[in-house]
Amino acid sequence: MIPRYTRPEMAEIWSPASKFRIWFEIEAHALDAMAALGKVPEEAARTVWEKGGAATFDVDRIDEIEREVKHDVIAFLTHLSEIVGPEARFVHQGMTSSDVLDTCLNVQLVRAADLLLADVDAVLAALESRALEHKYTPSIGRSHGIHAEPTTFGLKLAGHYAAFARCRARLEAARAEVATCAISGAVGTFANIDPRVEEHVAKAMGLKPETVSTQVIPRDRHAMYFATLGVVASSIENLATEIRHLQRTEVLEAEEYFSAGQKGSSAMPHKRNPVLTENLTGLARLVRSAVTPALENVALWHERDISHSSVERGIGPDATVHLDFALRRLAGVVEKLVVYPDAMQRNLDRLGGLVHSQRVLLALTQAGVSREDAYSLVQRNAMPVWRGEGQFLDLLKKDPDVSAKLTDAELEALFDLDYHTRNVDTVFARVFDA
Amino acid sequence: MIPRYTRPEMAEIWSPASKFRIWFEIEAHALDAMAALGKVPEEAARTVWEKGGAATFDVDRIDEIEREVKHDVIAFLTHLSEIVGPEARFVHQGMTSSDVLDTCLNVQLVRAADLLLADVDAVLAALESRALEHKYTPSIGRSHGIHAEPTTFGLKLAGHYAAFARCRARLEAARAEVATCAISGAVGTFANIDPRVEEHVAKAMGLKPETVSTQVIPRDRHAMYFATLGVVASSIENLATEIRHLQRTEVLEAEEYFSAGQKGSSAMPHKRNPVLTENLTGLARLVRSAVTPALENVALWHERDISHSSVERGIGPDATVHLDFALRRLAGVVEKLVVYPDAMQRNLDRLGGLVHSQRVLLALTQAGVSREDAYSLVQRNAMPVWRGEGQFLDLLKKDPDVSAKLTDAELEALFDLDYHTRNVDTVFARVFDA
Amino acid sequence: MIPRYTRPEMAEIWSPASKFRIWFEIEAHALDAMAALGKVPEEAARTVWEKGGAATFDVDRIDEIEREVKHDVIAFLTHLSEIVGPEARFVHQGMTSSDVLDTCLNVQLVRAADLLLADVDAVLAALESRALEHKYTPSIGRSHGIHAEPTTFGLKLAGHYAAFARCRARLEAARAEVATCAISGAVGTFANIDPRVEEHVAKAMGLKPETVSTQVIPRDRHAMYFATLGVVASSIENLATEIRHLQRTEVLEAEEYFSAGQKGSSAMPHKRNPVLTENLTGLARLVRSAVTPALENVALWHERDISHSSVERGIGPDATVHLDFALRRLAGVVEKLVVYPDAMQRNLDRLGGLVHSQRVLLALTQAGVSREDAYSLVQRNAMPVWRGEGQFLDLLKKDPDVSAKLTDAELEALFDLDYHTRNVDTVFARVFDA
Amino acid sequence: MIPRYTRPEMAEIWSPASKFRIWFEIEAHALDAMAALGKVPEEAARTVWEKGGAATFDVDRIDEIEREVKHDVIAFLTHLSEIVGPEARFVHQGMTSSDVLDTCLNVQLVRAADLLLADVDAVLAALESRALEHKYTPSIGRSHGIHAEPTTFGLKLAGHYAAFARCRARLEAARAEVATCAISGAVGTFANIDPRVEEHVAKAMGLKPETVSTQVIPRDRHAMYFATLGVVASSIENLATEIRHLQRTEVLEAEEYFSAGQKGSSAMPHKRNPVLTENLTGLARLVRSAVTPALENVALWHERDISHSSVERGIGPDATVHLDFALRRLAGVVEKLVVYPDAMQRNLDRLGGLVHSQRVLLALTQAGVSREDAYSLVQRNAMPVWRGEGQFLDLLKKDPDVSAKLTDAELEALFDLDYHTRNVDTVFARVFDA
Repeated sequence: MIPRYTRPEMAEIWSPASKFRIWFEIEAHALDAMAALGKVPEEAARTVWEKGGAATFDVDRIDEIEREVKHDVIAFLTHLSEIVGPEARFVHQGMTSSDVLDTCLNVQLVRAADLLLADVDAVLAALESRALEHKYTPSIGRSHGIHAEPTTFGLKLAGHYAAFARCRARLEAARAEVATCAISGAVGTFANIDPRVEEHVAKAMGLKPETVSTQVIPRDRHAMYFATLGVVASSIENLATEIRHLQRTEVLEAEEYFSAGQKGSSAMPHKRNPVLTENLTGLARLVRSAVTPALENVALWHERDISHSSVERGIGPDATVHLDFALRRLAGVVEKLVVYPDAMQRNLDRLGGLVHSQRVLLALTQAGVSREDAYSLVQRNAMPVWRGEGQFLDLLKKDPDVSAKLTDAELEALFDLDYHTRNVDTVFARVFDA
Repeated sequence: MIPRYTRPEMAEIWSPASKFRIWFEIEAHALDAMAALGKVPEEAARTVWEKGGAATFDVDRIDEIEREVKHDVIAFLTHLSEIVGPEARFVHQGMTSSDVLDTCLNVQLVRAADLLLADVDAVLAALESRALEHKYTPSIGRSHGIHAEPTTFGLKLAGHYAAFARCRARLEAARAEVATCAISGAVGTFANIDPRVEEHVAKAMGLKPETVSTQVIPRDRHAMYFATLGVVASSIENLATEIRHLQRTEVLEAEEYFSAGQKGSSAMPHKRNPVLTENLTGLARLVRSAVTPALENVALWHERDISHSSVERGIGPDATVHLDFALRRLAGVVEKLVVYPDAMQRNLDRLGGLVHSQRVLLALTQAGVSREDAYSLVQRNAMPVWRGEGQFLDLLKKDPDVSAKLTDAELEALFDLDYHTRNVDTVFARVFDA
Repeated sequence: MIPRYTRPEMAEIWSPASKFRIWFEIEAHALDAMAALGKVPEEAARTVWEKGGAATFDVDRIDEIEREVKHDVIAFLTHLSEIVGPEARFVHQGMTSSDVLDTCLNVQLVRAADLLLADVDAVLAALESRALEHKYTPSIGRSHGIHAEPTTFGLKLAGHYAAFARCRARLEAARAEVATCAISGAVGTFANIDPRVEEHVAKAMGLKPETVSTQVIPRDRHAMYFATLGVVASSIENLATEIRHLQRTEVLEAEEYFSAGQKGSSAMPHKRNPVLTENLTGLARLVRSAVTPALENVALWHERDISHSSVERGIGPDATVHLDFALRRLAGVVEKLVVYPDAMQRNLDRLGGLVHSQRVLLALTQAGVSREDAYSLVQRNAMPVWRGEGQFLDLLKKDPDVSAKLTDAELEALFDLDYHTRNVDTVFARVFDA
Repeated sequence: MIPRYTRPEMAEIWSPASKFRIWFEIEAHALDAMAALGKVPEEAARTVWEKGGAATFDVDRIDEIEREVKHDVIAFLTHLSEIVGPEARFVHQGMTSSDVLDTCLNVQLVRAADLLLADVDAVLAALESRALEHKYTPSIGRSHGIHAEPTTFGLKLAGHYAAFARCRARLEAARAEVATCAISGAVGTFANIDPRVEEHVAKAMGLKPETVSTQVIPRDRHAMYFATLGVVASSIENLATEIRHLQRTEVLEAEEYFSAGQKGSSAMPHKRNPVLTENLTGLARLVRSAVTPALENVALWHERDISHSSVERGIGPDATVHLDFALRRLAGVVEKLVVYPDAMQRNLDRLGGLVHSQRVLLALTQAGVSREDAYSLVQRNAMPVWRGEGQFLDLLKKDPDVSAKLTDAELEALFDLDYHTRNVDTVFARVFDA
């Protein structure tokens, strides 16, 4: 995880301290269940909770032991026994390291998903607020970067809101994918552990028992999780790209908020760079880079191999941390986005009314002109406008063949922006009232 | 799509003929809705359905027109008007090409998903049948490719069943992602078309209206769809890898079915290569290769650019066709897999009982031996077995320090395979009774 | 390969007919070498060349045989013996199918590379010609999409020329990577074939003997090849993105050539969409999608598994065909690009001279003003310009604190575009005289 | 970078301290060149070198300034002026931040490449030594995981040596790709800086001047660099996969070195897991994950956008650090690999001589038996062997139809392993004498 793109809340989930705390809870809950089943003394479970629960695990000490025994879970258990004393011998009985490691990873991914869901909520809130604010702010719609027909800035934002609402649902599904627990032993047969222990731990940790674990929790779950993060990242890139376009010098319909103190702003007042959204574009690439290795992690050999582990040490923290940061940054960008409705109107007007040519064509056809003739009428009035010789509406009014079919009032109506926004309410209702 | 990895059912969905049929239906349903709204004569809609519905669209003719006008939808509409006559002028009014193209793509992806769901069902049926057949067939569980503890072959298959059951649910969700329709005009404002037209077409085509379309249907939906195919492909690779491992000469616990006629089988009877599952491994890579471009397709410029189109012309057919083929091939491989329980037992016995060392260790501990001493007892009996000097059980029985703690009967019980399969019922119930 | 993005020259390389012709040549050259070594009768080699060389292999017949024997090379050899007669029994002796398949694949990839090199040459020629044409055409340089300092349009193109010159060198290296031949038998030990046969075939086919083949030619070579195609695709995307930006309505400094016949051009004269470069953007994604599966193909099991084969049946033709098409399309776009120097100048002037603020700042500093004061002087004259209240140069001239340090002539010199193009010659010499 | 997969040498390259040192050197060398050109006082350059050269830059202080000015290079320059005093005002004149940032990144990537080259050399040395040691150690060659024909363990390793020798050459090329320097100003026109400054800095830093930089150094160079790392990673995965296969319980022809102290080794002597090579498999996935974002970084907008930056903050250190670690780990695994020639021989003999069936078939054909009859003869003797009823050679000797054509001595010769190793010298000469 890159420090400057890291928020402490998410980093905390992946800290050694958090990890050891989760390991402890898994072991201690398992012990509870074993005690309830009469497999170990209830006293042992109580002691472990008391002493271990109160302890702060010494990460350096555990690292030191690991360097010697070359096994992370054994290192932890050794340290735990240093804290708990002889009762520690009941801990982990019949369990395998992966029971702890995989269940812990899923707890971390679930917690990460919870933060990401809150992040998406922040993005949604910002988008909704700005979409409502600019519900009727006219703005040119562009296909292929070329002016097409009018839309509103609010509609643009509503579309992104809808995309992030979908992302939210996908994140919920991704969270459910990895919200499973395995306490099933060396090859998943529960040979040395009662399945009820797994059920107890699962419940206690907010998870469900994994249907079939084979030492490991199957990695198609994690593949789906990271693939989902990749899709969310792409939706971020989509909105970031929109803002970058709107901010470019020739368009300048909106700008990222630029704080007063930021160096260089006023000697070159034009040089306000959309660096936040460019950064988001890059972060989207980084988050997406987790998808392929996560897919490659699925085909482990037989009941497990450990190739997935190094991958997850990388993409687990990195993808969640960077996505968390990106979503928060995006929420801030949207909230504080400086919008220039005048510039939007100016750009709309820029082509002398040619953006209405399609409507004029349709109106002529509906007024009985053949498609071919209508096309030719539009064309002969559009070309001078394109060369900068007049406004489209004026020329049409003056063209006798046009005015024979459409009155001035009818023509003016064709240039009415309100026409294009008639159905904004309908779309907004779909987005925000659903 | 690679011909040898193509099934006609899926290829058909992507044929020009299917595409033009879907285009026609979209246009004709839209016309119905416009007629119902009084925008166009009912007669026109009727005529279009009658003449167009009966027609076989001439793909070559449409291609010919397209070469001239350089626009696929206009080429189709021109050809349609050749078939339908003057009534054709009411077709497509107020619509934009993408309304047809994007809705059609989604219809195709939905149909492809339906085939894929049926494919997964075939895989599930094969897995369930073989899992039940081998529910109690003992087989060594392996972690890191090394013998760990016993499991059953049925449990292995049950795990893959559970994975494909998850894939099924994911495909359902992916299908819902793309089951949307857009008939919203040049920039998605419904400027020239009533939203009720979209509602009608959506319903008629088995889709839902897209919440916000901006000329195009947002590509995060398709990204999620293809990402899901990638996850399914990885689950195929996972099972394929298992079978490839089981078939290797030194393991040979199972073999792909090898038809009598297949060249080279009997002069080199050992040379039965797991070529089908190797092929599935490759196909999984191919299908997954659609994921990244689909993610890159999300960030279109403003209301749309057409960069997504060439990508989808590739990955649309390719990923669905190859995944369809792969799933069917996999179902066949599983159905006809030749399983060798004797070989499984032979491999289980191969290490002279060392796979039970973990249980012996645990039993000694539970019998009051310290962990350290237990370890040392196991070790001194395990090493000769590892050097090929005897069976583990025999040596343990002969070791006075061991027999002081565990009777022969107790020791024999520790080598009982049934112990490891006690919970198979529980796991199967989770998988198949859920 | 998608028909509309396929040129016949490249498709031909991948046709079954070409493949069988290459297979024949490999077998016949190998036979020559065996005859020269006295392993087979010279007569046999002569007959095979005569009859086989004259034959057109019947693809349908070979397919028919393959359906029966389920082995492509055996099917071909059977068909060859139908053509050649009994002498065919000497063909393929001591060889393994992969000797033919892998050597053929490399011949195809080498030929594809040759076409791609010619394609890049076409791109280079177009870029050089247009770069020289616009060597001194002033144009605003933009960082972050925001006006920065002046550059020339020729410099932009020269930069892309340099990138494609690098791509050319990379393609040469990629070609060399795969220009190897393997005729080394079942596990690459030359057990049943003399290494001199391989040397002969290699030379005859324009290849080098593979250092170590293990039934297959190692796939790191192909991974490097496809990775290189991915980089070339990204350079295409880079130039395509530049053009798409230049064509957007608000910028409109250049446009893709729009043929007179293209539908819809003149009724909506503004609606000339950069569809070719958008298409190139998509094709770049498609070509790049070959990189990951090619990387995944490297780790074959032991001396070979066949998982790479299905991948290569896809990416081999697809990546080369689409890249070939994309490069040719790009060459055409550059050649015929409609460039608007007036618009470039207009955009340059758009900010009232603020793009020169950096130079003014520097000049003031060099004239002895402290950095802080200089900044403040620039700022107080820049802000009114930014608000649309005057030209920067005029305001500076009128500012007594500025004119105390810089004369009008000095100030004017700071706004001289030639200043920015002084070193264009130097850069062009680096690019075109290297 | 993941701490446990990080070597200090490589991490050091990416440390803030190294970065600021490189920044300083770039600035100071540029100052030298400016002084030589008479643009700044020589005294200034001398002072900067003296004071700055002796200084240890205070990373925390620079971070503190950056938090205020939100610009990393300005923060550094501010800190530098704190150290150097008023002479610092001559530093960075006419330069742009990217001149420093991009040149620094390339210096870091070049240094990383140098470490990686040394790493590959370590891998090559280990492979050569072990290949020579086992040049004639017989071992079964396997295609599709199935026994094919004999090879030697040395040949296997020689093949991997050849692959890493190719990787070395590719890394050299990748190093050259990024060994460029840009000191060309805001949009690469050298508007405010003399191109000779760039030449001087380039030479001083061991780089070449970038042909055309546009504020940034073009990212196709970096894409090629990271793509090359991806290929190297795949070659690591290839060798790691081989070792994992050789270590699996049923094969056990080689094992990763297992240190005496490693927990759990002797109570379960069979449970020596190939965790290092599994780890390398995962690391290969991680390193490869840099390729796609690096390819996506190429298409920056106009003269630059900053989206590449966050990507490179991630993949720059991560991909080089993890690859460096992986190569060193691989070298160690190969050096210390425990090889079991007896087990290789046992596996070779496992099929009762059937691996020679192909040779017998050929010999019969050469002895005048028709291909069909030869096949049938081989088949009828192979099947009993396959069922475990005898050795292939014995049965062939007893078959009168076989012995009519081949004497016992001739048959025995067909089972001679030396036959398969006749050309080992030839191959080794290609690999090691080239």
